[in-house]
Amino acid sequence: MAAPSPTARAEAADRLAGLATPAGALGRLGELGVWLASCQGQCPPEVPSNVRAVIFAGDHGVAAHGVSAYPAAVTPAMVRTFAAGRAGVSALAAANGVSVRVLDIAVDDDLEGIDPEVQHFKVRRSSEPLHLRNALTLAETEQALENGAIIAAQEIAAGADLLISGDMGIGNTTPATALIAASLGLPAAELTGRGTGIDDAALVAKQELIQVALDRVKEADLGPVETLAALGGADLAASTGFMVAAARAGVPVLLDGVIAVACAVMADRIEPGAAAWFAAGHRSTEPAQTLALDKLGLVPLLDLGMRLGEGSGAVAAVPVVRAAAAVLRDVALLSELAI
Amino acid sequence: MAAPSPTARAEAADRLAGLATPAGALGRLGELGVWLASCQGQCPPEVPSNVRAVIFAGDHGVAAHGVSAYPAAVTPAMVRTFAAGRAGVSALAAANGVSVRVLDIAVDDDLEGIDPEVQHFKVRRSSEPLHLRNALTLAETEQALENGAIIAAQEIAAGADLLISGDMGIGNTTPATALIAASLGLPAAELTGRGTGIDDAALVAKQELIQVALDRVKEADLGPVETLAALGGADLAASTGFMVAAARAGVPVLLDGVIAVACAVMADRIEPGAAAWFAAGHRSTEPAQTLALDKLGLVPLLDLGMRLGEGSGAVAAVPVVRAAAAVLRDVALLSELAI
Repeated sequence: MAAPSPTARAEAADRLAGLATPAGALGRLGELGVWLASCQGQCPPEVPSNVRAVIFAGDHGVAAHGVSAYPAAVTPAMVRTFAAGRAGVSALAAANGVSVRVLDIAVDDDLEGIDPEVQHFKVRRSSEPLHLRNALTLAETEQALENGAIIAAQEIAAGADLLISGDMGIGNTTPATALIAASLGLPAAELTGRGTGIDDAALVAKQELIQVALDRVKEADLGPVETLAALGGADLAASTGFMVAAARAGVPVLLDGVIAVACAVMADRIEPGAAAWFAAGHRSTEPAQTLALDKLGLVPLLDLGMRLGEGSGAVAAVPVVRAAAAVLRDVALLSELAI
Repeated sequence: MAAPSPTARAEAADRLAGLATPAGALGRLGELGVWLASCQGQCPPEVPSNVRAVIFAGDHGVAAHGVSAYPAAVTPAMVRTFAAGRAGVSALAAANGVSVRVLDIAVDDDLEGIDPEVQHFKVRRSSEPLHLRNALTLAETEQALENGAIIAAQEIAAGADLLISGDMGIGNTTPATALIAASLGLPAAELTGRGTGIDDAALVAKQELIQVALDRVKEADLGPVETLAALGGADLAASTGFMVAAARAGVPVLLDGVIAVACAVMADRIEPGAAAWFAAGHRSTEPAQTLALDKLGLVPLLDLGMRLGEGSGAVAAVPVVRAAAAVLRDVALLSELAI
């Protein structure tokens, strides 16, 4: 797989150093502009004008085992809310000029009456409880990865110059944490967070459940696809396929919280180097996200204490990416001024 | 002075709690939306559509005494760059839909040929070196405060629904740090930072210079206006007057780095309670900014490692404020959904 352009990166770093600003004064904006230039293979970079978020919705068998503060029935209700454009991410996306598409990958509901396009990539109803058995079959996992790749191709064909993977699914921080723990070789106790807001007792139960799942497969030395099948879910596999395809196509991805970052870790395992095409939008309150981002060498742009999921943290960070491109493109060069 | 509306604040907090998102999941965005509603006196708040930044430019006598990595000649050159729309803040403002107006309050240059409007509020050329003598006379200070108030009134008459005070002036972190140190009763060594990037030796010299200035006036028990005269500068006094007038008019202000925050501290001393109308846009690398924000009870929205000045950190944060308003206004209420 091709890396972002080192030529454009070098050219952008030179341009940044030549801007009519003190050295380093643009901070993260400067670095981000250089990254964007390298992804676009041009300097200065263009301001991303066609930013597209896809929400991969799916239920998880573990939701019935005390890992979430909310019942699984919330998942289909929220899919309808996205479809109606009334969710948190809908408002953020409208404010920031980002398009949103919601897809039912594994919701445990028929979503009767919903636009059939929403269900076109559905793999199954829910995924299996991963502490008891594999979340998916290998065939389902491959299907979900392939669906994600097709979805990415569609978004890119529609002109996407920056992609976001959002999530919806009660219980989904559990498989995300399990995927990160397995990939980083860390115990559940170091990574497990409160998701949408579970109490102390439920947090302990969630840690234990994730550790049971990790122990269940620890002897198997699984590759990334097998790990997704064992500990992930169809929605997470589809998001992973989406990110792999984006990286292969050379389209940058702005990551959201722990779900997206878990998928980014899996994408980088499937396609080593994929993470060079990713930037981190928002610091999650989930410990697993921070550890996984450290592993990928990424630092979030925002830290607003959000824990909404839905891709919302990445969508909130889009103006920062646009600002970084605008600064590198539009600020005067010192050589143009008479100082 | 009137405080932001407690009625609208309570209504907004109720609305936030009723949104179709988990409790607290919007993090800082939720709090920010509630603050904006209270400032606007209405719930839900409107998305700020007329955000106006004013850059108060001025030179400082201390710049000739080793406190900056750049010569004072940069100040007029940058004023011309703002006027041409080619500075860092110009690019950020264009990307984020913010208007920018640059005003020469105390630049040590005639700026020959520049639009006379830029110089309409000029108080003097430079301010005096504050470690040797008072930066301004009391009459000049009052004039600058009054000019700032008139400028705020002009921006508000033009429809501003959110104001930003930007700065340009080689050496200006020195008076800003001195104002904060004097107001918080802290020694220079705890507050002094590297500004645009001075080395270790210059940092020590800058600390010592600020301490000399603080010691020069320490017996005087100065009020806020006298403190601005002794340790500030005409550009900082004008920015302070701008913020006082904004708060009195009930128009919220988004603060930038250490210069704006020093002026916010002075504004809140002149008009106790003014800080309730302020939010913090960006974490500066200057220690004085963090200490002053703690004193005002404010936490920055962004921490991108920027240290450009010009109002740039606040301008970069404008989309976050807009997103906060959009979320509180547009997200469905749980009572509207069938969950």
